[in-house]
Amino acid sequence: MTPSTDPIYPIVWQRDRVILIDQTCLPREFKQVEINHYEEMAQAIKTMIVRGAPAIGIAAAYGMYLGAREIQTRDRVEFLQHLENIAQHLRQTRPTAVNLFWAIARQLETVRNTSGTVKDLQNILLETAQRIQAEDLETCKNIGDNGLTALPKEPEKLTLLTHCNAGSLATAGYGTALGVIRSAWSAGRLGRVYADETRPRLQGAKLTAWECVREGIPVTVIADGMAAHCMKKGLIDVVVVGADRIAANGDAANKIGTYSLAVVAQAHNIPFFVAAPLSTVDFKLNCGDEIPIEERDPAEIYQVGTTQICPDGAEFYNPAFDVTPASLIAGIITEKGAVKPGELIQLRSQ
Amino acid sequence: MTPSTDPIYPIVWQRDRVILIDQTCLPREFKQVEINHYEEMAQAIKTMIVRGAPAIGIAAAYGMYLGAREIQTRDRVEFLQHLENIAQHLRQTRPTAVNLFWAIARQLETVRNTSGTVKDLQNILLETAQRIQAEDLETCKNIGDNGLTALPKEPEKLTLLTHCNAGSLATAGYGTALGVIRSAWSAGRLGRVYADETRPRLQGAKLTAWECVREGIPVTVIADGMAAHCMKKGLIDVVVVGADRIAANGDAANKIGTYSLAVVAQAHNIPFFVAAPLSTVDFKLNCGDEIPIEERDPAEIYQVGTTQICPDGAEFYNPAFDVTPASLIAGIITEKGAVKPGELIQLRSQ
Repeated sequence: MTPSTDPIYPIVWQRDRVILIDQTCLPREFKQVEINHYEEMAQAIKTMIVRGAPAIGIAAAYGMYLGAREIQTRDRVEFLQHLENIAQHLRQTRPTAVNLFWAIARQLETVRNTSGTVKDLQNILLETAQRIQAEDLETCKNIGDNGLTALPKEPEKLTLLTHCNAGSLATAGYGTALGVIRSAWSAGRLGRVYADETRPRLQGAKLTAWECVREGIPVTVIADGMAAHCMKKGLIDVVVVGADRIAANGDAANKIGTYSLAVVAQAHNIPFFVAAPLSTVDFKLNCGDEIPIEERDPAEIYQVGTTQICPDGAEFYNPAFDVTPASLIAGIITEKGAVKPGELIQLRSQ
Repeated sequence: MTPSTDPIYPIVWQRDRVILIDQTCLPREFKQVEINHYEEMAQAIKTMIVRGAPAIGIAAAYGMYLGAREIQTRDRVEFLQHLENIAQHLRQTRPTAVNLFWAIARQLETVRNTSGTVKDLQNILLETAQRIQAEDLETCKNIGDNGLTALPKEPEKLTLLTHCNAGSLATAGYGTALGVIRSAWSAGRLGRVYADETRPRLQGAKLTAWECVREGIPVTVIADGMAAHCMKKGLIDVVVVGADRIAANGDAANKIGTYSLAVVAQAHNIPFFVAAPLSTVDFKLNCGDEIPIEERDPAEIYQVGTTQICPDGAEFYNPAFDVTPASLIAGIITEKGAVKPGELIQLRSQ
């Protein structure tokens, strides 16, 4: 692959429909799919054609518009009733990432605060989806720059470990954890990325590695169980991951395996950062125990591609996320700055 | 699969050759391969048709005989020279498991201490290989019973997490960590096994799950990164793993991912046991830093079955083992009893 710094946009509004990068096909194939209806968008979120907390929020925001434009009424009340059904359909796709609920709530609130015809309400939904997307891109760039400031000062060229994919693909573009990676790379502060392959769905091996290779950032893929060994060997300077939902106290839900990584990072005295927009913080939740954890199809474990790896008769447990307690987190890197988990609450009203 | 308690023997001496279960085909296919020459045995060890520290030792012991019987000389000195070459060939297959070196050394020593014709020396090599195998089976049963005594007394039905496969397939039969599981199951002390899938080669998902399902032991397969989450949720009472080489101070090399597991077990106050025969202890090494760690083909990470999962241009690191420091180990379960890592040295001269 010839390095390219052309930005990656997983979600594009083009003419009258949404174009998604089909993330289930990467890195084997770069394929885009057209989304014209909100049910298609719900399905795309559920099957992880589009994934990553901020990207799911943006996708759902467009889904709200796609649904709204098909509502055949001129009556505001009836329109809002239909819209609530569409919202409910979209909410039921994935339970953990709060950005989904946040974006849907923002769309509903915007519509409620807008007067005018149904056509006006439909228009404002498209505009708001585009605004959420534009804001997220800006947010990610700020996260990247704030992350750069928060990173350890030594060594000059850091080796940074990340888990799953919190990249351009997981956001409007640029990424959260990968935003920090990009900003550090641009600033000459990054030597190499270690990417946990991130079983079961291998987003690290597939997506993070793809984003890094594409931009010429040196990346070493390891199996998840190797991270502690790499830390013990002194190969890792800092860990930066994304988040799917952060409680008010700083406890952070992220892709399964993150909690393990945080425990082993602390055992090696390696700073562990969470990079996420404030839209990922669920200030209604006091702590991480209250975050609902999605369980996914066991087939994600017992087969890889088309290859079944486990014997019939075995059972499976497939939680998609885990919760890292605030006590293991050195800092949460947001668009408003990097703060200690306990200080997160101070960013609420800003 | 109808539960069967028929023992599994990965290595069988039959008439004039060795029959190996091809462990690269399980659980998809139960296939056996014939080994007639020592080069074939070396290749079978290298490609992991036979794997697991004690099993590798037994296989190498037979490999010594297979090589020896082809040496065309009646001269003892010449015979021993040829035998040393065969030993060297077998030693170069896998660097970490000490049982390989131990079994080869035992064969060489037995021959040196035997007088008689070359035919006599050849015969004693076959007898010793069979003796090593029979001893290992006995050893594993003792490990199982000693493990049962060492397990926590509460709860009555334990949920036990293991990593990789330290089962019948990894030994003469019965297993080390899986020996403890079998003894606990027979005694009614076991509720369920959690099996780490154990990337990259998935011996947990493939082999441990197969052994458990085959005997009707409830087994839940998880991705390696899920273990810490399961511990936090209170699902795991105890961890038992095997070992490939243990230093005199109790530091234990085992399949990559074991060290991570030991760190997270300690963080949750869950006892972490290593089950291994004394032939796995390398009393010449003071500590785990001296254990050579095999690095294997990166293809084990970047493809699963025939499916390539990573983009071209990514780099890989594929250590096959890691070292768990004695400080994280509650006990080492041997055929002579379960001891604290620091007491291991006392078992040396017994």
